[in-house]
Amino acid sequence: MAVYTDIDDDELDGLLLAYDIGRAVACKGIAEGVENSNFLLQTDQGPFILTIYEKRVNSDDLPWFLGLMAHLNANGLPCPQPIVRRDGGLLSRASGKPAAIVSFLNGRWPKKPKPVHTQKVGDALARLHLAGADLAAERANGLSVSAWRDLLSQCGERSDEVHDGLYDALTTEVGFLEAHWPDALPRGVIHADMFPDNVFFIDEELSGVIDFYFACTDVLVYDLAICLNAWCFEPDGAFNITKARQMLGAYRERRALTRDEFDALPVLARGAAMRFLLTRLYDWLNHPEGALVTPKDPMEYWHKLAFHQKVASATAYGLDF
Amino acid sequence: MAVYTDIDDDELDGLLLAYDIGRAVACKGIAEGVENSNFLLQTDQGPFILTIYEKRVNSDDLPWFLGLMAHLNANGLPCPQPIVRRDGGLLSRASGKPAAIVSFLNGRWPKKPKPVHTQKVGDALARLHLAGADLAAERANGLSVSAWRDLLSQCGERSDEVHDGLYDALTTEVGFLEAHWPDALPRGVIHADMFPDNVFFIDEELSGVIDFYFACTDVLVYDLAICLNAWCFEPDGAFNITKARQMLGAYRERRALTRDEFDALPVLARGAAMRFLLTRLYDWLNHPEGALVTPKDPMEYWHKLAFHQKVASATAYGLDF
Repeated sequence: MAVYTDIDDDELDGLLLAYDIGRAVACKGIAEGVENSNFLLQTDQGPFILTIYEKRVNSDDLPWFLGLMAHLNANGLPCPQPIVRRDGGLLSRASGKPAAIVSFLNGRWPKKPKPVHTQKVGDALARLHLAGADLAAERANGLSVSAWRDLLSQCGERSDEVHDGLYDALTTEVGFLEAHWPDALPRGVIHADMFPDNVFFIDEELSGVIDFYFACTDVLVYDLAICLNAWCFEPDGAFNITKARQMLGAYRERRALTRDEFDALPVLARGAAMRFLLTRLYDWLNHPEGALVTPKDPMEYWHKLAFHQKVASATAYGLDF
Repeated sequence: MAVYTDIDDDELDGLLLAYDIGRAVACKGIAEGVENSNFLLQTDQGPFILTIYEKRVNSDDLPWFLGLMAHLNANGLPCPQPIVRRDGGLLSRASGKPAAIVSFLNGRWPKKPKPVHTQKVGDALARLHLAGADLAAERANGLSVSAWRDLLSQCGERSDEVHDGLYDALTTEVGFLEAHWPDALPRGVIHADMFPDNVFFIDEELSGVIDFYFACTDVLVYDLAICLNAWCFEPDGAFNITKARQMLGAYRERRALTRDEFDALPVLARGAAMRFLLTRLYDWLNHPEGALVTPKDPMEYWHKLAFHQKVASATAYGLDF
């Protein structure tokens, strides 16, 4: 939930003159996304989303993110369509910050995902990977294996405040991941943050994927590992093999996995768990005392990491190669 | 800004079965209201607002608030129209809490009010007072003069942390207000919180008044005093007599003030300043350390109080009787 920046009426009216989407009749800050300020903008032509980018998003990356959304849309993935300005650009400025307007997507994100949802997510992820294949521009993943040792050292010994022995255990795990990370697998555009709150459904049909602000160029199946972690564990910590089987099966129906990709899933899932564990741990240790926004529990990902450490092969995720 | 409670998809679908407004296609938490959780609910019939009431609103008062909105709507005031359930009721339950669905109002609240806005607010306030005149049910104002001494004592000597000598000064002022409070003036339904963020405009036309959760039965012109404070001071603290003249003039065009009401405006304005000063002071002294939501500055209302203390008569607000 986040509205950090507000927009003045006169400025909004002025901003809309640069577009061909009518006049604003309402504009409400919405509780969506944690990095930027988002507004549900109603014009006399319909609903849109106005995003004002806060400092956690590198403004140099914005043309890539907006270009990616336009590219994926053009290739049939349901995701926000950046609205083109009259001057041909996608990026504007509002309240002294970068801003963009994108199409509004109907649908709601599933608070309690079912196997049918994970099936649709597996399918959409494969579609995203295929649709992104011919995007020439690349963006490095700043939160992949090469970043983890540094992130862990920023958390430091204080990690043990969260769980006794955590710092040493994570140091060992980072070493393992650095030594065993699969570098030779097929690469391309990944979403890198396709959690349930970033995927909309109408009934049981997937109607949209949002929030491309962690998207980057990386190992494709690493994205699948992120989704396994985000979608296939139950609130009590149990791994739901039915959900995983649906996700992997639907992905493979659209994009076949190589043997190497399949075999790499457990180590990629450990890495995916490490990435979210570390950023949550950092936020946990550095959030202001008494803040109203409670940081997410890093231990959720510690338990997911432990699950994957015990996995003998990718068949543990419900399907044989 | 507030979304405290979320609503599950299945529960939302179930909730909508009790209404005749179609099926949900999107539901987004919005940054509106500080007491309740509000969602912009899009159904296949259009947009609505779903409110889940949090504990700061007394659920025993909800039928009165919803009945008031329905009554004001029926009498032509643009405000949210509570949607009637198939069973005839206005109140539902969602996520274990009371909930209601109301109509969506187009418009945006003015971040920088101009005299034309204060004119329309004065007019709407008089319309609200007239429309509410024949509402039989009453609701006492729990934040009026009889509550201030107790509220001040809850802030106590710590008030001086905000401003040196504040506690003694406010004790004296509360004594003055108790001694001089005008009890014999015309009473009726007042909004009691008609700040700029509760009034929507399309261009310069008032399109809606929202947030009736402080509404109550009290002295009518006290509501006008609250609006003078909320709308007619500039960010630098200066009183804008043009805005006040527009507001009072428009009010009186629709509802004439008695001599007693006119003469009572300065003491009512001091009381209105005291009411918001005290609740802000209480929140300031009791908010969690480091909280991301910064409480509003009580000193803003200290300066407004000081202005009204120096006023010789209501003509200082721009109009003769």
